[in-house]
Amino acid sequence: MRRKPDGDQRRRDLCDAAITVLAAQGAKGLSHIKVDRAAGVAEGTTSAYFRTRAALLVATTERVVELDLVGLQKAKSAAGGEDPQTPRLADVVAAAAREPHLTRAKARYELNMLATREPAISDLVRRANEGFVELYRDMMLRLLPGGRDLPPSVIDDLSAITQTFINGLLGRYVVGDFSISEPDDIDRLLRRMVAAQDYS
Amino acid sequence: MRRKPDGDQRRRDLCDAAITVLAAQGAKGLSHIKVDRAAGVAEGTTSAYFRTRAALLVATTERVVELDLVGLQKAKSAAGGEDPQTPRLADVVAAAAREPHLTRAKARYELNMLATREPAISDLVRRANEGFVELYRDMMLRLLPGGRDLPPSVIDDLSAITQTFINGLLGRYVVGDFSISEPDDIDRLLRRMVAAQDYS
Repeated sequence: MRRKPDGDQRRRDLCDAAITVLAAQGAKGLSHIKVDRAAGVAEGTTSAYFRTRAALLVATTERVVELDLVGLQKAKSAAGGEDPQTPRLADVVAAAAREPHLTRAKARYELNMLATREPAISDLVRRANEGFVELYRDMMLRLLPGGRDLPPSVIDDLSAITQTFINGLLGRYVVGDFSISEPDDIDRLLRRMVAAQDYS
Repeated sequence: MRRKPDGDQRRRDLCDAAITVLAAQGAKGLSHIKVDRAAGVAEGTTSAYFRTRAALLVATTERVVELDLVGLQKAKSAAGGEDPQTPRLADVVAAAAREPHLTRAKARYELNMLATREPAISDLVRRANEGFVELYRDMMLRLLPGGRDLPPSVIDDLSAITQTFINGLLGRYVVGDFSISEPDDIDRLLRRMVAAQDYS
């Protein structure tokens, strides 16, 4: 493995450039040379760090996951604090409709599609998506007074509902549909779909 | 415009082949020659009918929309009949997790992404997606006793919730996640998210 002293930072920078290429040009447009250009480095640099397309895809997927989880964990711990300005689940979701998150959301969408055809990243992408499940579930339960006391099967259903709804919203943002992207609108819809129901 | 007597059928066949190529290989894999091969016709046939990539994309998008609307209208009119076996909204959605619908769902996903970069199909794709709004809304309201008597703002919200949830489910199927694809599971979740709430 070839690493310069600043190798980790360079790899991150190249992956960040790959994310912008994926978002702007799709999987079709991703190549080592395009990443070189987007990163503003000498031609051949990306190839030196990631010799194959699969290696580049794996590293880029890992970078997307890392950035997503950092953002979500930050939102989650902030929401657990005393700050009245703490983000709601709706704020976290709405952020994806705006830059710089939107670019990452687009890249993730491309990677999700690619994962169906690229064995190198299929497990990685699936595990990454599963990683969001617990985080979103916790944030969803905060919308429900007494949510944690609900029957587990109900919590599972409400979790599936909110997460699939969020998947759908992100999918809309990625294709340029921002009709539901105001945090207050998202919050109202999230509360409506998990509202107190007859759980008998 | 060049048309043989069976030109319309030939164009449909080529578009159907383009749908399978899009689903299997993504936008990256779509080319006139690959469509020729998938359709089992002489090389150059697709180019003769659709001279540009944009023309091929437009025709393929129109074909996806046509097939989707036919399927949905059929389900909708059946659901309005007396047949106890009439499909529910959940049945229509679950069908997309299985072939032959899954291939079309994958192709639509690719076209939705392409539409952000291909002006030739961007309006077409947006209008097509809007076309589903009314159909899904009607099917959703059937889940709600007295649904049509709810305040319009509530109906709008419930419509946005169910449609975005369905977008999310279809997005999951496309990337191979079938964890929520049993019709009864989908029906239960749909009913839960639109369940009687405090509409005051």
